[in-house]
Amino acid sequence: MFIRNCWYVVAWDHEIPAEGLFNRTVIGEPLLLFRPSGGGIVALEDRCCHRLAPLSKGRREGDCVRCGYHGLKFDAQGVCVEAPGMDTVPAKARVRSYPVVVRNRWVFVWMGEPVQADTALLPDNHSCDDPQWLNIPGYLHYDTPYLLICDNLLDFSHLSYVHEKTLGGSTAIAQARPVIEKIERGLRVTRKVGNVPPPAHWAGARDFGDNPRFDRWFIYDFVLPGTLLMQSGGRPVGDAEGDMRRAVELHSCQTLTPETETTTHYFFQQSHRPELGGERLTRTIHDSLIVAFNEDRDMITAQARNIERDPAAPMLPLAMDSALIQFRRLVAQAVAAEQQA
Amino acid sequence: MFIRNCWYVVAWDHEIPAEGLFNRTVIGEPLLLFRPSGGGIVALEDRCCHRLAPLSKGRREGDCVRCGYHGLKFDAQGVCVEAPGMDTVPAKARVRSYPVVVRNRWVFVWMGEPVQADTALLPDNHSCDDPQWLNIPGYLHYDTPYLLICDNLLDFSHLSYVHEKTLGGSTAIAQARPVIEKIERGLRVTRKVGNVPPPAHWAGARDFGDNPRFDRWFIYDFVLPGTLLMQSGGRPVGDAEGDMRRAVELHSCQTLTPETETTTHYFFQQSHRPELGGERLTRTIHDSLIVAFNEDRDMITAQARNIERDPAAPMLPLAMDSALIQFRRLVAQAVAAEQQA
Amino acid sequence: MFIRNCWYVVAWDHEIPAEGLFNRTVIGEPLLLFRPSGGGIVALEDRCCHRLAPLSKGRREGDCVRCGYHGLKFDAQGVCVEAPGMDTVPAKARVRSYPVVVRNRWVFVWMGEPVQADTALLPDNHSCDDPQWLNIPGYLHYDTPYLLICDNLLDFSHLSYVHEKTLGGSTAIAQARPVIEKIERGLRVTRKVGNVPPPAHWAGARDFGDNPRFDRWFIYDFVLPGTLLMQSGGRPVGDAEGDMRRAVELHSCQTLTPETETTTHYFFQQSHRPELGGERLTRTIHDSLIVAFNEDRDMITAQARNIERDPAAPMLPLAMDSALIQFRRLVAQAVAAEQQA
Repeated sequence: MFIRNCWYVVAWDHEIPAEGLFNRTVIGEPLLLFRPSGGGIVALEDRCCHRLAPLSKGRREGDCVRCGYHGLKFDAQGVCVEAPGMDTVPAKARVRSYPVVVRNRWVFVWMGEPVQADTALLPDNHSCDDPQWLNIPGYLHYDTPYLLICDNLLDFSHLSYVHEKTLGGSTAIAQARPVIEKIERGLRVTRKVGNVPPPAHWAGARDFGDNPRFDRWFIYDFVLPGTLLMQSGGRPVGDAEGDMRRAVELHSCQTLTPETETTTHYFFQQSHRPELGGERLTRTIHDSLIVAFNEDRDMITAQARNIERDPAAPMLPLAMDSALIQFRRLVAQAVAAEQQA
Repeated sequence: MFIRNCWYVVAWDHEIPAEGLFNRTVIGEPLLLFRPSGGGIVALEDRCCHRLAPLSKGRREGDCVRCGYHGLKFDAQGVCVEAPGMDTVPAKARVRSYPVVVRNRWVFVWMGEPVQADTALLPDNHSCDDPQWLNIPGYLHYDTPYLLICDNLLDFSHLSYVHEKTLGGSTAIAQARPVIEKIERGLRVTRKVGNVPPPAHWAGARDFGDNPRFDRWFIYDFVLPGTLLMQSGGRPVGDAEGDMRRAVELHSCQTLTPETETTTHYFFQQSHRPELGGERLTRTIHDSLIVAFNEDRDMITAQARNIERDPAAPMLPLAMDSALIQFRRLVAQAVAAEQQA
Repeated sequence: MFIRNCWYVVAWDHEIPAEGLFNRTVIGEPLLLFRPSGGGIVALEDRCCHRLAPLSKGRREGDCVRCGYHGLKFDAQGVCVEAPGMDTVPAKARVRSYPVVVRNRWVFVWMGEPVQADTALLPDNHSCDDPQWLNIPGYLHYDTPYLLICDNLLDFSHLSYVHEKTLGGSTAIAQARPVIEKIERGLRVTRKVGNVPPPAHWAGARDFGDNPRFDRWFIYDFVLPGTLLMQSGGRPVGDAEGDMRRAVELHSCQTLTPETETTTHYFFQQSHRPELGGERLTRTIHDSLIVAFNEDRDMITAQARNIERDPAAPMLPLAMDSALIQFRRLVAQAVAAEQQA
């Protein structure tokens, strides 16, 4: 069961071709995406209403798509406008159409009631497309339920262990106690860690000398359905709290989109300021993220296999689970509210 | 659930070796086939009655087969005639034997009650083995239920889209309205399409000049459990209806045999008259069919995956589905009748 | 359903590294094994009590293991002794610990109630580690339920057919009637076969001349949960029963450990006396066993697939099944007794 009345990221903007058809599954529903001539992106159910063939195996005809099996033609609203061999098309011949918004290079689809689609619910993913922030877009596919990955992002104590040699570098991260605040449709997590080594890849930004020590911070909103918006960074130990001259400032947007009950799309980027470095730094940060996110995926996949082996095995809630437990409750409440409505 | 009291094609005649053992699964039942010395083909349950090992992993001993696990020996009727270490063999020691008929190179097995096996129910697949018709036998395996492939063969409007560049070539095929008649245990479908280009591979038969136009016809019986017997062809536009001098005449036999609930064997050939061309044409027609039938398989497999994703998703019946809806009803009635009996 | 209150072999001794972590699944439960500094082997549940990640993806810290996800640290008894960021560790924070015994190179785990762990129930696998017996340890993985492999080992009539060219060589083995006796927690099977050819690989031991004939014997105990302890061998026909001068004497220990309901670990060795030959003979015997045990695996896997196809298909009990039927009854009784307790 998934929340339906929310925006899920279905793709990076550049993934949808100028011509042709793109398909991806979201919360178990196959979607067809394409760009009509007038601009924007169309999202339709990727399943012909006639015999359920994927429309993405058909072809574009102007701003319509024609099914490649028996030739039904659908317009950009999903209405069947032609059925070969029939003089009139039945009114019921249509496929579902989904509201789409492109915002800062993320392509969002609204999987719930179209009339409820509300752009006020879009997350503020500004750094994905902001000249003041440089990044390379990332995508990973997971063979695990999406909530296990939300769990991971809501408890950064794992940085000390999963990412010991990449993003972490100190057990102090796990020792630190984050502040967790409720915000609209989510949580704000603030974790500050003093006097720790920086991640190795920060060396690409500046020469911090031998054995540098930093005060690091991670401040992020984690909002429904599963989006992390984070400012993080650090400054050399000794620099005053307001002094950003030698600080490393990063902004990251990451979002999890369930593909099915057991698989997930993961879209992410971590941005740096142009002042901190050029293309080479952007690539270094991206590459480090890929390595680290594969560490997460290995661990979460192993966890998921253990859970499949015995779905009844209980977890033991600990203090570090506070944020993830609260977030799972938000998801469950949202799903339950939609079920009642 | 499948019809049992009918003939299913289990193999092309040449697939069963002169010596040795052949195995294939039909409607979920593993079959062992071999040729006894006296001629004909034997079909037994490919599952030893003792510990259920496949007999096809054993060996021939004269006209018997010996299980390769513990050595029980079965005669061509499936009766156990020897059990190592036992002086007498229990009367219950036998495997099921299935009636087999070879007719025009197709090897048919009767999966129902042997006493009801009735050769009058064999389809007239004469062109599979007729000096007046030349062909190359074909076989494909599908990872889809067999009825989805029956559907495909009962609505040739798909030729305009799935086979646009192979068998089709014109949307007029989909526009044409076929005549559908009930026949014994099936349907007759007649579709005539005037003034359309011929399929590309007909060029291998004769030089029809630039941009040739044909009047084409497809007339086929589709009979239980899932066999298509078709005369098709075309004549250059302008030639009188009775004038066959420049016509292309083809005969095709195709049959679908469920392997399991979700997989299918597909046996087929399309024949031409010797007057139309020699070996090269025979090969050209076969190769074109393989390309086209892979187009079908791609589409039907994608359709099947969409159906698996949401088995409750409804299909929308349209005029073009008339034949396939009637045929599915025939199958359902036959299955229900066997259930009651 | 499996017997729990018994010793299962989880590994050969040499498989567990001196440092580091080893994992294997037994009766559906993931196990972590490692060697603490004080000697012996520790077996813990390979599933952190916190979020169910496998502890085997973590790391050793002294005689403890630290989870690689969020850093919980467990001692060799499975008690959580540290949870990062928490001043006190909840009493419930622990993973299951399993009794372990290493005996003659087999590492046994007790999957039932630890207080009931009883070393008197260990099988006498002396030849696995005895200077009077030489062997090479073997391991195979099966994609079949473990009882199907027990069946195989409890009816050696299959040697005549499955191993016709390897271990068998004569239908006389299947013709012979074994004596079956009840013993503590199992059965003793005695099969003697007179005047038959020896297995081909015995030629590696001595020159027996052309067309040698042997009187062969197979005497084994098969005990819960699934362990074969066998003395086998043969002497040239004509040598008196007590005369061992030209005899081939072998001792074999083989044991089946369910991995899951449908997969199995198989540990085995067949030993010869030092007098019979050196390293080369040891290798020859091992290699022949691998070939033969792959013959078994092919057959049993094919059998298992047939059973999956139709789980309701009945087997026909024959005289040769006496031992396996009795053994399956012992297993069922032991499982039922544990269910009631």
